[in-house]
Amino acid sequence: MLDAKRNLTTIMDFYELTMAAGYLEEGYEDQISVFDMFFRRIPDGGGFAIMAGLDTFINALENLSFTEEDISFLRGTGAFNERFLEYLSNFRLHCNIWAIPEGTPIFPQEPIVTVEGPAIECQLLETLLLVTFNHQCLIATKANRIVRSAQGRPVMEFGARRAQGYDAAVYGARAAYIAGCSSTSCVMAARDFGIPASGTMAHSWVQMFPSEYDAFRKYAELYPDNCLLLVDTYNVTKSGIPNAIRVFDEVLKPLGKRPLGVRIDSGDIAYLSKKARKMLDEAGYPDCKVCASNSLDEYIVRDLILQGAAVESFGIGENLITAKSDPVFGGVYKLAAVKAADGSYIPKIKVSESTEKLTTPLLKKVWRIYDKYTGKAMADYVTIFDEEVDAEKGLTLFDPLQTWKQRVYQNCTAKCITTPIYENGRLVYERPSATQIRDFCKQQIDGLWEEMRRFEYPHRYYVDLSEKLWTCRRQLLEEVTRENS
Amino acid sequence: MLDAKRNLTTIMDFYELTMAAGYLEEGYEDQISVFDMFFRRIPDGGGFAIMAGLDTFINALENLSFTEEDISFLRGTGAFNERFLEYLSNFRLHCNIWAIPEGTPIFPQEPIVTVEGPAIECQLLETLLLVTFNHQCLIATKANRIVRSAQGRPVMEFGARRAQGYDAAVYGARAAYIAGCSSTSCVMAARDFGIPASGTMAHSWVQMFPSEYDAFRKYAELYPDNCLLLVDTYNVTKSGIPNAIRVFDEVLKPLGKRPLGVRIDSGDIAYLSKKARKMLDEAGYPDCKVCASNSLDEYIVRDLILQGAAVESFGIGENLITAKSDPVFGGVYKLAAVKAADGSYIPKIKVSESTEKLTTPLLKKVWRIYDKYTGKAMADYVTIFDEEVDAEKGLTLFDPLQTWKQRVYQNCTAKCITTPIYENGRLVYERPSATQIRDFCKQQIDGLWEEMRRFEYPHRYYVDLSEKLWTCRRQLLEEVTRENS
Repeated sequence: MLDAKRNLTTIMDFYELTMAAGYLEEGYEDQISVFDMFFRRIPDGGGFAIMAGLDTFINALENLSFTEEDISFLRGTGAFNERFLEYLSNFRLHCNIWAIPEGTPIFPQEPIVTVEGPAIECQLLETLLLVTFNHQCLIATKANRIVRSAQGRPVMEFGARRAQGYDAAVYGARAAYIAGCSSTSCVMAARDFGIPASGTMAHSWVQMFPSEYDAFRKYAELYPDNCLLLVDTYNVTKSGIPNAIRVFDEVLKPLGKRPLGVRIDSGDIAYLSKKARKMLDEAGYPDCKVCASNSLDEYIVRDLILQGAAVESFGIGENLITAKSDPVFGGVYKLAAVKAADGSYIPKIKVSESTEKLTTPLLKKVWRIYDKYTGKAMADYVTIFDEEVDAEKGLTLFDPLQTWKQRVYQNCTAKCITTPIYENGRLVYERPSATQIRDFCKQQIDGLWEEMRRFEYPHRYYVDLSEKLWTCRRQLLEEVTRENS
Repeated sequence: MLDAKRNLTTIMDFYELTMAAGYLEEGYEDQISVFDMFFRRIPDGGGFAIMAGLDTFINALENLSFTEEDISFLRGTGAFNERFLEYLSNFRLHCNIWAIPEGTPIFPQEPIVTVEGPAIECQLLETLLLVTFNHQCLIATKANRIVRSAQGRPVMEFGARRAQGYDAAVYGARAAYIAGCSSTSCVMAARDFGIPASGTMAHSWVQMFPSEYDAFRKYAELYPDNCLLLVDTYNVTKSGIPNAIRVFDEVLKPLGKRPLGVRIDSGDIAYLSKKARKMLDEAGYPDCKVCASNSLDEYIVRDLILQGAAVESFGIGENLITAKSDPVFGGVYKLAAVKAADGSYIPKIKVSESTEKLTTPLLKKVWRIYDKYTGKAMADYVTIFDEEVDAEKGLTLFDPLQTWKQRVYQNCTAKCITTPIYENGRLVYERPSATQIRDFCKQQIDGLWEEMRRFEYPHRYYVDLSEKLWTCRRQLLEEVTRENS
């Protein structure tokens, strides 16, 4: 596997090291701290994002260590003393880590990963944690939009060549699969995550032979059970489809085999697919599927289907693998509390110049509130870690920003979705396979209201605070504001 | 090094393998073929792109091999016979590869990488080649726009946490440095490519201590030579700058040290930087630099400078590391020729349904034409590989699409920028360091007309064909069109 043994420890911002060295110098290295990862905005204005990246992050954590080469590089920068370098040489994780499981719909402002442990360790994990989840949450969220647009038709992930680097290809394929894609073109992703591999031919195959007919004929002879022909190298309707039909007749029919399909990769897909469909039907191949690719996204797929395009599966490349329309998942990692000598938590808040950058203090848990009768998710409820949640009594949720708003939920159940992953540096989470996560994801999204799945201006799902947490946050905010006024 | 020994062989689309197996079965494995990588559109509507990724691609080629695990995975798919798996087990590169050197400005439709060799090998390299160059050309091109916008002020690459995966962080930092960034925050990129590392503190450092003043004081005591303070955790003008000045006075002054700077990461950078500048000047710190970050890009940086923002360096994150405004570099890899038994090249063209997807046939070279007097680049001139180019006699260039247009260049020199990298599978290229490439890049961009460096509607630089190549392409196109009409 690509990642099973890979040492990604130095995927780290330099300032994590200058800060860590500072904590060590100041005796803060054992100061137990709580950091949350959360995000502020759902990409593409969608109704929810999808959690992804946890298994990859666990792999990275299992291989954390500063090599001799790393230490000598850091020594060479002149920024660090030997005591700190010694500390790094012996680095071992002691943190508790919680996360929302992969495949779960997630929402702005709620902690999706929480790290509690010595300040220095929490700090050193920041960049690795953020890049892992930011990337995979981004791609899973985008892929699910595209999968939804295809209304049950298979969506094949085809993007490796346009990905932003190798990991973007491989882990992007993983995230896309979790979110509902049916297969990947990327061999490494198929190998490492058990994703079905798909792909048949490129234009170069067609060009390599003396004629399109020869190219199709050879392909059908070689792969009679998997005969999907790319029909747009020269001209779809005048050359591609007629040659395909001829080859199906001449090669497959005598073998008693049926063609898998044809792929169109350019031109007007709605027009060409309908024309191809008609020609294939008339030639006696109503079961031969038309597959479309060529810079598709959720809006084009939706429109193609609305226009009656005769497309039965979609290959999606660059728009999915880079989340082109909104290519950044802006997850952040912020200090939420530090532990006092008496074991209590001192809440921490970041105010900053922009109000949307406000954080929520303390060690927390996220509960998903479901309607007892429909089983649909109604809201997320963020509490202090040790609060009792008894949904039977009804729950009162406080809007974190619009502080005059409260919502009361009756006839609901509450499920804690904050899940233990590491306890004192030891992995305690049973890791599901990519396919298991994919099934779980589908089931979770089926549990959302239809109105949340709109591409634009979806129903807003609330992430509210418990009264205790809301009160703590307000007091802290008033304190800071008073100090600076 | 991350990449020195990394086996990326299976960063490959599955169809490369089905096609390769087909070539082997058909006896085409030794059919010498020529494939070009080129791109069709400059990202963000800019005047040029920047070549990057070659050294990374060389690393990947030096580690090409199918492992036993790969072979057994492929066997398990049921798509391949033992003869092909045996071929893969013994895979060795025999190709010739040419490329335009990293750091060179590049233009649409010209071959930036050319691979000549057995069809099967050319095919198997496709995905790995494309993802490598597509990613790094994208980031280098974007980074150079941002560097240009800063008008000589240092631009620090800060994007690791928002990158699309680990490689996007590391190789993105490399591409950004090549294109003119002054440093990276990513430790692994600094370690592997000799890029200066930068970064001092995050908000968490400030929050970790009882007060902002304490946090600043501790930092100044620890790093008196590198004291750059983040001043926006609570309030820039009421808290951050006053506390910074107090710490400069109390900690640095007695040591005879000067502060490095302050960083502002939120709010209105133009307003806050001017206010901060004034406060620092009045306190006797006119040499303390103001650094700005927070979702900057080339347009915001340009506007900030136009508005007189007192910013002396910029930290750029997500907009650079994902090329957010246009995150795909659409490079493609197309068959251009196959070799006949007599050693001559048979030209190949791809027509398809979309005219902009038309390719240019044959094994080619790219020449850059310079004005003899100004030394500025005037046009690129694409010829058949063995054509003589004698700029002394003047050159006539043919527009590839607007076929009635010809341009005649006098008083020019011509330099072939197509450079041999591999000969018969053997590396023949002396690999420059990232810093050498960065210097070369700067020099190359200085050799472009100012008008090409505009962000929008820049002067269009011509990539024209020689008469012989133009004639070959026209004939081939007519042939294909006739066949399908």
